[in-house]
Amino acid sequence: MPASSSDARSARRPRSDGVRTRAAILSNAAQLATVQGLEGLTIGGLAAAIGMSKSGLYAHFGSKEELQLSTIEHARQVFHDAVIAPAMASPEQERLLVLCESYLAHLRERVFPGGCFFAGAALEMGTRPGAVRDRIAEFQHDLARLITGLIVEAQSHGRLTGEDPRLLAFEVNAQFLAASAAYVLTDDPAMLDAARTILHRRLT
Amino acid sequence: MPASSSDARSARRPRSDGVRTRAAILSNAAQLATVQGLEGLTIGGLAAAIGMSKSGLYAHFGSKEELQLSTIEHARQVFHDAVIAPAMASPEQERLLVLCESYLAHLRERVFPGGCFFAGAALEMGTRPGAVRDRIAEFQHDLARLITGLIVEAQSHGRLTGEDPRLLAFEVNAQFLAASAAYVLTDDPAMLDAARTILHRRLT
Repeated sequence: MPASSSDARSARRPRSDGVRTRAAILSNAAQLATVQGLEGLTIGGLAAAIGMSKSGLYAHFGSKEELQLSTIEHARQVFHDAVIAPAMASPEQERLLVLCESYLAHLRERVFPGGCFFAGAALEMGTRPGAVRDRIAEFQHDLARLITGLIVEAQSHGRLTGEDPRLLAFEVNAQFLAASAAYVLTDDPAMLDAARTILHRRLT
Repeated sequence: MPASSSDARSARRPRSDGVRTRAAILSNAAQLATVQGLEGLTIGGLAAAIGMSKSGLYAHFGSKEELQLSTIEHARQVFHDAVIAPAMASPEQERLLVLCESYLAHLRERVFPGGCFFAGAALEMGTRPGAVRDRIAEFQHDLARLITGLIVEAQSHGRLTGEDPRLLAFEVNAQFLAASAAYVLTDDPAMLDAARTILHRRLT
């Protein structure tokens, strides 16, 4: 959309349209961040990529950090809907494997073009102290805790006994990370199959 | 070192000094790439970071891509010396575990400040087609083949029997990736301990 007509529209239309515009911008931002990096996500770069004016984007976000944090929040919601929600909607004893399948499916379907948004961001942001890194670290911490909880749940049903839940969660998360990295780097679905085989053997 | 004196020195001194200067520049470049990203490594940015003139760096590398490829080659040599060489110098039956210990040690000692150079680059470059991505993919392919070979070697000594060497190599590599990501993101040595425990249990 050309910048001028977009700016004119968002000034004239009611708030619900502004919300929709914001969601559309953040969807583009999250896609772009998995290709160019979260640090490569600038108001100027995003404006050019989606054909909006920089001033229009500044009106939405105000600063690069605010744009990054809003993009992370959008990506968290997308990840939740694609990966976590299907697991939590499954019967207790299937949740762990459904989580793994949903994760691999979101890679295969390229929900984000550059693989898992949070795998890429974890590797990228570790060396860049600040609110953005803290938010990524918090996401990873929450994901590890979620997986740990599902393992504890499985153990209460008599499965995966004798496993240290936090160590096994680390293993599962490692397969997620490796699947994302290897699939994007090679474009070879065999990488997803390898991760699936490993996860099934460890978890059943 | 100030740009002018550095340029003057490299113009006056014999070739061996130029080689040493080049190695010093690439050492800085590899460190910087693990903090700012391999794509964030520009001749201008590196020149500013090490206090050399851009023209001095152009004389060494000519283009950003040439700088990136030279930096990868330097990092490959550092990785080889820190991680692979100690494994290959060990008795056959210890090589796999020494490789794992050396990998974790190179993270703990922050041989690169941003964790494993090649883990970060694998996540970063997957979406950026070109010679740099191809070189990173080749490194990952070679590392997977090396680990697979060490597993086959262990099997010839009657250990790790019944394992699919390529799948187990994928698992090992995944722990490397996860250890690097989690350690840099959290600065918590417990992440290295988790990876070590997992690797020892899988490989002994």
